[in-house]
Amino acid sequence: MKTYLECIPCFFKQALFAARVATEDDRIIKKVLDRVGMLVKDIPLENTPPETGQIVYDTVREVTGVEDPFLEIKQASIDQAAAMVQSLEKKIANSNDRMRTAAKISIAGNIIDFGANASFDLNETVDQVLGSPPAIDDYHLLREKIGRAQRILYLGDNAGETVFDRLFIREIKKRVVYAVRQSPIINDATIEEARQSGLHEVAEVISSGSSAPGTILEKCTDEFVEIFRNADIIISKGQGNFETLSDAKGPVFFLLKVKCPVIARDLGVKEGSIIIKSAQGSRM
Amino acid sequence: MKTYLECIPCFFKQALFAARVATEDDRIIKKVLDRVGMLVKDIPLENTPPETGQIVYDTVREVTGVEDPFLEIKQASIDQAAAMVQSLEKKIANSNDRMRTAAKISIAGNIIDFGANASFDLNETVDQVLGSPPAIDDYHLLREKIGRAQRILYLGDNAGETVFDRLFIREIKKRVVYAVRQSPIINDATIEEARQSGLHEVAEVISSGSSAPGTILEKCTDEFVEIFRNADIIISKGQGNFETLSDAKGPVFFLLKVKCPVIARDLGVKEGSIIIKSAQGSRM
Repeated sequence: MKTYLECIPCFFKQALFAARVATEDDRIIKKVLDRVGMLVKDIPLENTPPETGQIVYDTVREVTGVEDPFLEIKQASIDQAAAMVQSLEKKIANSNDRMRTAAKISIAGNIIDFGANASFDLNETVDQVLGSPPAIDDYHLLREKIGRAQRILYLGDNAGETVFDRLFIREIKKRVVYAVRQSPIINDATIEEARQSGLHEVAEVISSGSSAPGTILEKCTDEFVEIFRNADIIISKGQGNFETLSDAKGPVFFLLKVKCPVIARDLGVKEGSIIIKSAQGSRM
Repeated sequence: MKTYLECIPCFFKQALFAARVATEDDRIIKKVLDRVGMLVKDIPLENTPPETGQIVYDTVREVTGVEDPFLEIKQASIDQAAAMVQSLEKKIANSNDRMRTAAKISIAGNIIDFGANASFDLNETVDQVLGSPPAIDDYHLLREKIGRAQRILYLGDNAGETVFDRLFIREIKKRVVYAVRQSPIINDATIEEARQSGLHEVAEVISSGSSAPGTILEKCTDEFVEIFRNADIIISKGQGNFETLSDAKGPVFFLLKVKCPVIARDLGVKEGSIIIKSAQGSRM
């Protein structure tokens, strides 16, 4: 997905939020915004938003000197999600279609996104998501593909959401490779947060080799790209992975909660919708 | 009021909105945002937001080549407000305190602000405002001051709101000088829009001499500043006039609808509140 003009004010909103998480010094925060301002002319609208996002968050890190501003937030999100696991396991156990319920819970976890929107209620989101159908629902295809797949690649997104991904992967009951960011970017999971979420117990956790808040194949390691190219199915979580892979060829399924008006318009759905979308359309 | 860090993403939102009103060419709109980006480092947080706002909107004008992007919007707002006059006159006639009702109607008209928030429902806002008390309510002081005043200066804000200002000024029943912007800026009224709103029938309409979306005394004409300094009471409408005069000495009353979180915090009220606030405090 290309960068829309609306993304530009949003980059400033995100830079301000991240800088505020990193420091209380308004002069330093102003310097972050000054530097982001200088970047605007170099943002090509042809780029995907996470390509620019990476530069914006690198700027926050450089100017504030804080390597991982969202470290504490990531920990808190994992704790918050972990505290819900027992009750969510019951919901999965009591449901007609365990895998569908677990998939929807993992999509509800995608609300934990401090790039898109820092104010959310995780419990409420889970209830909402379980109580309503996805706006795009290729779940039957997803299930069928998973049933026949041997090589499953799962692209993680935010720390905390990772805990719910574990519940979903348990229902897949197959070997899964779970890929995360190479180093800290927003509140996205790295190998550290994936381990803390127990994902190594249900999947092989690897780094994509890139620290963009999405999956830009040209910036990933050869090893990751090979796994991507050979996968029978790729489960892509979240907005950043959608923004960077929406035009990719391959057996990709996008599972996300739509948290911004630009993506809502791009997908032709309402903001707040949840999506289970096959990149290859609804026919197999 | 100083510029808050949150104002910076908002300048981009405003530049994008104004550029979209001026042109459909995304490349030109991107150039506007590029130019605004270059400005950020030169925005001192000590300045009031309208000082920067003027530069931002000048940039929109320069890059798009459209002198008055909001011309049609201003006309439509005046027409919309004018269509409500008859029913509002009835509400004023049937109320216990005609001047208070008319003042509140003129504050409701302050919702017509295409800088702060382009989506609003004017009818609904009037009903809401008439049905609830101001969050800061120095009306009794305002009424008393007006009763004793000989020289009344009224600082206008948005086109359309001007129509409701006329209803309020009619209830004041004294000679009023009504000041507007020197040239087009956002959807603020100039002499042209003030005349179209019939303000010349109830007041002496003058220009402040400045085209900032507020009242920056250093940039106004000597003639205006003299009227300002000699006024027995200054009725200041809207956010921009508040932002630029909040620290001014003088018998100023701020009448506005709070349309942004920064001003809400600065005033210690909720967003959406209406305000009748004496700059000199609630004691006379």
